[in-house]
Amino acid sequence: MNRTDIFDSTLRDGAQGEGISFSVSDKLKIFSVLDSFGIDYIEAGNPFSNPKDLEFFASVAKLCTHAKPVAFGSTARKGLKASEDENIAALIKAGTRYTAVFGKAWDLHVDCILGVSLQENLDMIQDSISYLRQKGKSVIFDAEHFFDGYKANPDYALSVLKTAEKAGAEVICLCDTNGGSFPEEIASAVKAVKKQISAKIGIHCHNDNGCAVAATMAAHRAGASHIQGTFIGIGERCGNANLSTIIANLQLKCGEKVVSGEQLSRLTDTARYIAEVANIKLSGTMPYVGSGAFSHKGGMHADGVAKNPITFEHIPPETVGNERNLLLSEVSGRAAILSAIKKFDGSLTKDSPETKRITARLKELEQHGFQFEAAAASFDMLVLRELGRFKPHFHIEYFKIISSRLETGVTEKASALIKINVGDRHEITADEGDGPVNAIDKALRKALEVFYPELKNMHLVDYKVRVIDAGSSTAAVTRVLIESTDGDDVWTTVGVSNDIINASVAALTDSLEYMLFKNKC
Amino acid sequence: MNRTDIFDSTLRDGAQGEGISFSVSDKLKIFSVLDSFGIDYIEAGNPFSNPKDLEFFASVAKLCTHAKPVAFGSTARKGLKASEDENIAALIKAGTRYTAVFGKAWDLHVDCILGVSLQENLDMIQDSISYLRQKGKSVIFDAEHFFDGYKANPDYALSVLKTAEKAGAEVICLCDTNGGSFPEEIASAVKAVKKQISAKIGIHCHNDNGCAVAATMAAHRAGASHIQGTFIGIGERCGNANLSTIIANLQLKCGEKVVSGEQLSRLTDTARYIAEVANIKLSGTMPYVGSGAFSHKGGMHADGVAKNPITFEHIPPETVGNERNLLLSEVSGRAAILSAIKKFDGSLTKDSPETKRITARLKELEQHGFQFEAAAASFDMLVLRELGRFKPHFHIEYFKIISSRLETGVTEKASALIKINVGDRHEITADEGDGPVNAIDKALRKALEVFYPELKNMHLVDYKVRVIDAGSSTAAVTRVLIESTDGDDVWTTVGVSNDIINASVAALTDSLEYMLFKNKC
Repeated sequence: MNRTDIFDSTLRDGAQGEGISFSVSDKLKIFSVLDSFGIDYIEAGNPFSNPKDLEFFASVAKLCTHAKPVAFGSTARKGLKASEDENIAALIKAGTRYTAVFGKAWDLHVDCILGVSLQENLDMIQDSISYLRQKGKSVIFDAEHFFDGYKANPDYALSVLKTAEKAGAEVICLCDTNGGSFPEEIASAVKAVKKQISAKIGIHCHNDNGCAVAATMAAHRAGASHIQGTFIGIGERCGNANLSTIIANLQLKCGEKVVSGEQLSRLTDTARYIAEVANIKLSGTMPYVGSGAFSHKGGMHADGVAKNPITFEHIPPETVGNERNLLLSEVSGRAAILSAIKKFDGSLTKDSPETKRITARLKELEQHGFQFEAAAASFDMLVLRELGRFKPHFHIEYFKIISSRLETGVTEKASALIKINVGDRHEITADEGDGPVNAIDKALRKALEVFYPELKNMHLVDYKVRVIDAGSSTAAVTRVLIESTDGDDVWTTVGVSNDIINASVAALTDSLEYMLFKNKC
Repeated sequence: MNRTDIFDSTLRDGAQGEGISFSVSDKLKIFSVLDSFGIDYIEAGNPFSNPKDLEFFASVAKLCTHAKPVAFGSTARKGLKASEDENIAALIKAGTRYTAVFGKAWDLHVDCILGVSLQENLDMIQDSISYLRQKGKSVIFDAEHFFDGYKANPDYALSVLKTAEKAGAEVICLCDTNGGSFPEEIASAVKAVKKQISAKIGIHCHNDNGCAVAATMAAHRAGASHIQGTFIGIGERCGNANLSTIIANLQLKCGEKVVSGEQLSRLTDTARYIAEVANIKLSGTMPYVGSGAFSHKGGMHADGVAKNPITFEHIPPETVGNERNLLLSEVSGRAAILSAIKKFDGSLTKDSPETKRITARLKELEQHGFQFEAAAASFDMLVLRELGRFKPHFHIEYFKIISSRLETGVTEKASALIKINVGDRHEITADEGDGPVNAIDKALRKALEVFYPELKNMHLVDYKVRVIDAGSSTAAVTRVLIESTDGDDVWTTVGVSNDIINASVAALTDSLEYMLFKNKC
């Protein structure tokens, strides 16, 4: 049986996603992590339309990799022989063994976009592929809009594929370029193609109808053994088929070996690393790799996984390098809370008085607007306080903040003055910032760094404000979430008050205390 | 043929999503927008596990709606008759005609989670549904883990459904609770069920394998005519089947009328409004409704849609109330904006210089983090300013705010001092409040009411803060939305700044000016 090849286009079709832009160094990082994960083909750019991609291909040519780098371009353009076309010349210059070349498979496009006859289009495909083969290239032919073309004019769409096969394409990839086809339409077209084409069949789906993963898997079952997509689903419009989901589906649920077990256990890290380099926030709900993919909030679900994980988990999270996360909320039960407590005192049980006290305190705080499910560090601080294990590293004696707008209408920077105690010593200082929260944040750190210089390594990653109980408007209860890092770990704390400054200071205090506590453990 | 019913669980299963928490007022807002969109059933809470849901059901019972509100709970628990079970009592107390009751359909769960015999589980289901029917309820039975149960022990899973049907359930909903089943497995199980059950069959999928939409549609084709999901796909772990995608797929691609064309044209606004109330960022790549769902970045794609939109778009974006992104700055953006402008000057056209100027200003402000979708009153103020029709009713000359925490650790009320001008008169005053925003809000009103006593009738309904560009943490750009009312109308304004106080004052100023302008019209 044909082994299934995985073809990742994060660096080419993924770069077409809104807000995505890769430098050459970003591309090298992503190439390297995809290669190490076991991806077979990495489509990394269009050397004609983007000259900096040539620089990338030159760098990657020196690496010895499992993955085959692929340069992407179109067939020769209207009125040009392949040997005269600069786009084809750029593909050759890229120096990769594999090239992916797209051609039109929808008669509407041939007429309306290219403005050539149906036969001329076939000739362009034939000429381009043959020429690249003569130059020693292996060719993956992307039949653009194949499924729309097959619906409109099946004979012509199939003749495009036959032309590409005859010209020597190694893979014939069927593209649902507009992302509008359903899995059953895709499967039936793939089956029809399999009857007429003996080259390896590929599939390339987009997610405009929310079915890209299912359509890719349906095509695979119908006989496609070359799967295109992007690792975290980024791409034009609604994105490409998400390879991290597809690989896990194939390997864990369809009994197919796509990568090694060790590689699969890096699925989550790989996805998060790519998101980091792409500078986007990975959706918490992304299958397999999202931070919430194995989060249980409902009390019955949390109880269930404590009894037997398969009751509420479709796969063991560790197989894809992710983690179970029992969210601490008013709907979660004592079982969820216990697992969080146990790391501080392994002897505690569901019925220990400490567990009951912490559960009661959690519920009380949640009624006041706290939410610990996204603020595990504050929950840890709560547990330590209730267990009598917490000794504060500092105490804020007072602070004053002045915000003002001048007569000219320009806003002055807000300024904050603070006095803190550490043991029997104290420090009074001040700082200024953009708005009152930023000012007090800076003043507090400035005072603390006198005693704890290691806090210089800590900085905030994210600051979120949610007004709850909005009925009372600007006097409403405000919840602040602060995400912090020291370069090694990332943690989140929460503060609640009807004064946004107090809520912020509370979350900040927890975050600073957490860092100081953590470093002593 | 059975019409397909749409059942939305944003307020129940959606609330199980990580980071989601709805107040009673949030729930009423979402209920109302789902109802107006044409959703048939709205599952709005579990009155037993969450007592504040009872408050919600009491409020909603007074509304006359298309949608049927549904209270959710479990079958009677181990060892209890339905008539003795407080969970069932809470369902009755909720006062809705429809109740959704879940029971176990997977033998593993019956044994390992409930700890009862297979027969006892059937008895619990029978007793609970019969009792609710006696009390006049229509029952939707959610067969939890049906597909896993059907794989493990098909006879037992089917006997659960038959028991529920015999006890009088109106809908038998098949749940893929763990989200691990593929569309073809779901379709074949639904077909098997249809042979044995004559009640209406429902489908409830989760997205753990990335196939929730496709699986729901496969079940529908196999005969399920009651579709459960959440409007923007939020829910436990990887989320529920996304109804906005499914509704658009059914109506635009499967020839089924689910809602009216006018309602469908509100698909995007409805999704964005729900995300706003849930205080989450709607994914830009979400099918049909994402901000990037019809964005064309590739040059060839942009050229193609200019020649003929169907070349690179699977549906016309306006059918779902979304927009093509490349053309926003040229044609279709202006068309959308025009209708908002026309209420102030009916003579303006798409090509008037004023329309172009307002479009350009809008884009500029949006790049700075403004968002007018949920702030129509601020958009009106922008239009009036650009048309030269706006004369400010007041001017803030300066303000100063002092926030402090005393040595005792108690926070003083924040105090604000303000000077405003109205024509050639001025007023200096001060007030105090819970936090700096509340203090300046009160001081500004106090000063203004000297000149405009009618402002006493205006009060804030909601105050929302969203930190955007979170990379720079407490100094990040902050967007404030303020919803106000004078008893007759409700309007929302927006302010943006890297200082939360300035953002709040800007939104507040727009809101006060809007009220004063409105009263003169």
